[in-house]
Amino acid sequence: MKVTVLVRLKSEVLDPQGDAVRRALGKLGFEGVRSVRVGKLIEMDVEDGLAGPDLKARLAKMADEMLANPVIEDYEIVG
Amino acid sequence: MKVTVLVRLKSEVLDPQGDAVRRALGKLGFEGVRSVRVGKLIEMDVEDGLAGPDLKARLAKMADEMLANPVIEDYEIVG
Repeated sequence: MKVTVLVRLKSEVLDPQGDAVRRALGKLGFEGVRSVRVGKLIEMDVEDGLAGPDLKARLAKMADEMLANPVIEDYEIVG
Repeated sequence: MKVTVLVRLKSEVLDPQGDAVRRALGKLGFEGVRSVRVGKLIEMDVEDGLAGPDLKARLAKMADEMLANPVIEDYEIVG
């Protein structure tokens, strides 16, 4: 089964990559882009046996321990 | 207004980063993770003036020209 974890920089953390993208878009003539934030889209295929009430807790543990850096990143478990 | 573009490696493209995450999860004791694919979550704040029927086309152009590498990546415009 497919599960998705979105990892974002915390809002108070500067995003030089996002700023670089925003400036590049401006140079390419794309007006009106106020800000860009770049995060990680982590898509996993997990065995069906993991489905169930504790899957979300297990994914949260994966994110806390491995997928996201808790100092500078937040994560969201999708679906 | 917020817009989101998801950028993924094409399915036929190897994902060494995803493989590394999968192996690391295994070492941390997280069983049952068959595959991991890591992509980009690009979240933009654009001026309300851009809202309208051609916003999606404009975002597609941004993705084609800048946000995604068309040789190895696909993109999805969300919301």
